[in-house]
Amino acid sequence: MKLDFVLKGDVLFCTEDREVQTVPDVFLICKNGKCEGVFTDIPEQYKDFPVEDHTGKLIVPGMTDLHVHAPQYTYRGLGMDMELLDWLNENAFPEESRYSDAEYAKKAYAIFTEDLKNSFTTRACIFGTLHREATEILMDQLEETGLITYVGKVNMDRNGSESLSEESAEVSAAETRKWLDDINGRYKRTMPILTPRFIPSCSDELMKEIGKIAEEKGLRVQSHLSENPSEIAWVKELVPASENYGDAYALFNALGDEKHPAVMAHCVYTDEKELAILKAHHTFIAHCPDSNLNIASGIAPVRTFLESGVSIGLGSDVAGGASLSLVQAMVHAIQVSKMYWRHVDQDVKPLQFKDSFYMATLGGGKYFGKTGSFIPGYEFDALVIDDSALRSMRELTLHERAERMIYLSGECSIDAKYVAGKKIL
Amino acid sequence: MKLDFVLKGDVLFCTEDREVQTVPDVFLICKNGKCEGVFTDIPEQYKDFPVEDHTGKLIVPGMTDLHVHAPQYTYRGLGMDMELLDWLNENAFPEESRYSDAEYAKKAYAIFTEDLKNSFTTRACIFGTLHREATEILMDQLEETGLITYVGKVNMDRNGSESLSEESAEVSAAETRKWLDDINGRYKRTMPILTPRFIPSCSDELMKEIGKIAEEKGLRVQSHLSENPSEIAWVKELVPASENYGDAYALFNALGDEKHPAVMAHCVYTDEKELAILKAHHTFIAHCPDSNLNIASGIAPVRTFLESGVSIGLGSDVAGGASLSLVQAMVHAIQVSKMYWRHVDQDVKPLQFKDSFYMATLGGGKYFGKTGSFIPGYEFDALVIDDSALRSMRELTLHERAERMIYLSGECSIDAKYVAGKKIL
Repeated sequence: MKLDFVLKGDVLFCTEDREVQTVPDVFLICKNGKCEGVFTDIPEQYKDFPVEDHTGKLIVPGMTDLHVHAPQYTYRGLGMDMELLDWLNENAFPEESRYSDAEYAKKAYAIFTEDLKNSFTTRACIFGTLHREATEILMDQLEETGLITYVGKVNMDRNGSESLSEESAEVSAAETRKWLDDINGRYKRTMPILTPRFIPSCSDELMKEIGKIAEEKGLRVQSHLSENPSEIAWVKELVPASENYGDAYALFNALGDEKHPAVMAHCVYTDEKELAILKAHHTFIAHCPDSNLNIASGIAPVRTFLESGVSIGLGSDVAGGASLSLVQAMVHAIQVSKMYWRHVDQDVKPLQFKDSFYMATLGGGKYFGKTGSFIPGYEFDALVIDDSALRSMRELTLHERAERMIYLSGECSIDAKYVAGKKIL
Repeated sequence: MKLDFVLKGDVLFCTEDREVQTVPDVFLICKNGKCEGVFTDIPEQYKDFPVEDHTGKLIVPGMTDLHVHAPQYTYRGLGMDMELLDWLNENAFPEESRYSDAEYAKKAYAIFTEDLKNSFTTRACIFGTLHREATEILMDQLEETGLITYVGKVNMDRNGSESLSEESAEVSAAETRKWLDDINGRYKRTMPILTPRFIPSCSDELMKEIGKIAEEKGLRVQSHLSENPSEIAWVKELVPASENYGDAYALFNALGDEKHPAVMAHCVYTDEKELAILKAHHTFIAHCPDSNLNIASGIAPVRTFLESGVSIGLGSDVAGGASLSLVQAMVHAIQVSKMYWRHVDQDVKPLQFKDSFYMATLGGGKYFGKTGSFIPGYEFDALVIDDSALRSMRELTLHERAERMIYLSGECSIDAKYVAGKKIL
């Protein structure tokens, strides 16, 4: 299939300096699945490309969800009156244990993958459960959607529940190797990622095994980091040799490097020292504000992260977050940053629209290489958004329309969606 | 029209102790526009009432929006990168000045009233602009919707803009009296409420006039209180005799009494002393968490308010808030209370679903008398909500369905709506 075409519409995208480029009523060119740039007229060499006319609609880069739990999707919006560790034991663990049943997994993951396909997300880093078979079902279904994803079979050999735990580090590592063998070469758009749930769920032995597998097979790691004060204190007890929670992962070679960066969700309580460790390892931070609100975790100092130059994007963290929508995550990121400024540290300025748009698109997109922008040479991930239902009494600039679209996304619709040049909606 | 009927469905409502009553698959009886209660079978005396079958759907009390600016509706979701005083000057004042044009007001208010009619709101306290004619247009349109509302012509004689200010206290008071004369006896469901914008917008002379009119005509007052630290400091300069911002209103007899309570929006920085003044005057607090997030105002100590026994409900505060949805306001109230607990004061416990549901229904409903619950004798305000689009892998309790509905309201629909027994949707 030839991935050469032209989209016409009102285009917005972020550049490296986190500024928003707004170019109304233009032609956006995709050649061989890559972006050729934005033009007021179609240049000669693209004259034969088919044109999709989305005049009057917003065209923005596809968005990356750096952290989402597929098996938690079916109970999103429930049990929000609890904090992290209780919430895991009452909600997450009992539900995830059901994925030992392949038929259950098939049905439940079909709901998740269908809704993810219809969302603003074009790329994602996804947690499965500890079950190998269910994780393969999830990967099979995701491959069908046309989305590009990293997916992990979860590792956990301690502090789970009777029905949700692996017997030992050896069993967990062996299952992980078996999973990797099973899926080897099976997918074009779905990649495995090693997924120790978090330090409290993984014994030292297991973490060592994961570090070994990562090195052997050149794989990345995803996990959780510094989400909640009780969790952080617990990690300090569990890995007394670590300087901080981030260092606990580093000790087991689970933070990756420039070529194989890890993604760490939350980092609500990451201080300068931990941040330096993340930067040294080229780790990506997945900022998940909806979840941080719902499970009462706290507010991450995202402005500080952005200024430090650490890699950072957004995560829905369903089901700590109630919605897969990354534009809702954009709003939440701005809102919580205002409360951080007001109530925690008035030297840390609130985020603006452009900062949040950057994280949802280019910031998180970098985890997948050159994605999340319409800079020439970038992979062509795009969303066509119809905002015409938002009635207005005056002409709005393209920037104003985009701002309004994120705050009122429930009244907008996604008309078309492209991932690496492939139209999936 | 006889307002006798029966609704069948899954019923939830709050009682005085802020507990949620869940009664699945029952009959809810409306007689003469008032609630007769909830029954597993239809009692003999109601056997002739027509039955509307909403089996499998949620039926909850109508919700009260204690604070919303009608003229700001058309620019909701815009200009969110600013703080209160800048935001007023850049957004609110220029837009409101357009309502000097009756044709503009007609068109713009038609959008607001249509969307409010279709929202979760059954009753509301609404700000217009300072323009008498436009405010009457708004009231005419609201009366048509079937909603029950208080609506105010705004008073402001200082610190507005060239195009948005009244010439003097005398002119403002005279316009207000003229407005009250104009609409006298015109409506059944739409009531006037005196609306000094806030202390910085109203000279001492004007505030005195408003206090006088309130007493003369037995009218209520709505305004803003203790929203933002800069605003509070400004009020202290403007009314040096006041002990605090709340006291500044009290000095001008604008806080009302048990029979004519005022409603004050925000109260983010209300301390014990100010709270005591509000309680003494039976003033209602309109908690507006979405606005407090967006304009970076801060987090109100709502748990403290609830425990103090002060009257309190929710406000959308469009366009500081981006949405008219009171179920979104419920979610925001819970979320910000978690951040207050985490980052401001760990002795103040987060709100739970039941607290937020109370404020949206019974808490705010009390401003209109016996409304906001299905306790027998209460006016019959009800919403029928279809949550069947929310797919689940297991049976949910009615309480769980309600919790999920508020977090995922964008995927639910309002199937029917009744205000004081009248079906308006």
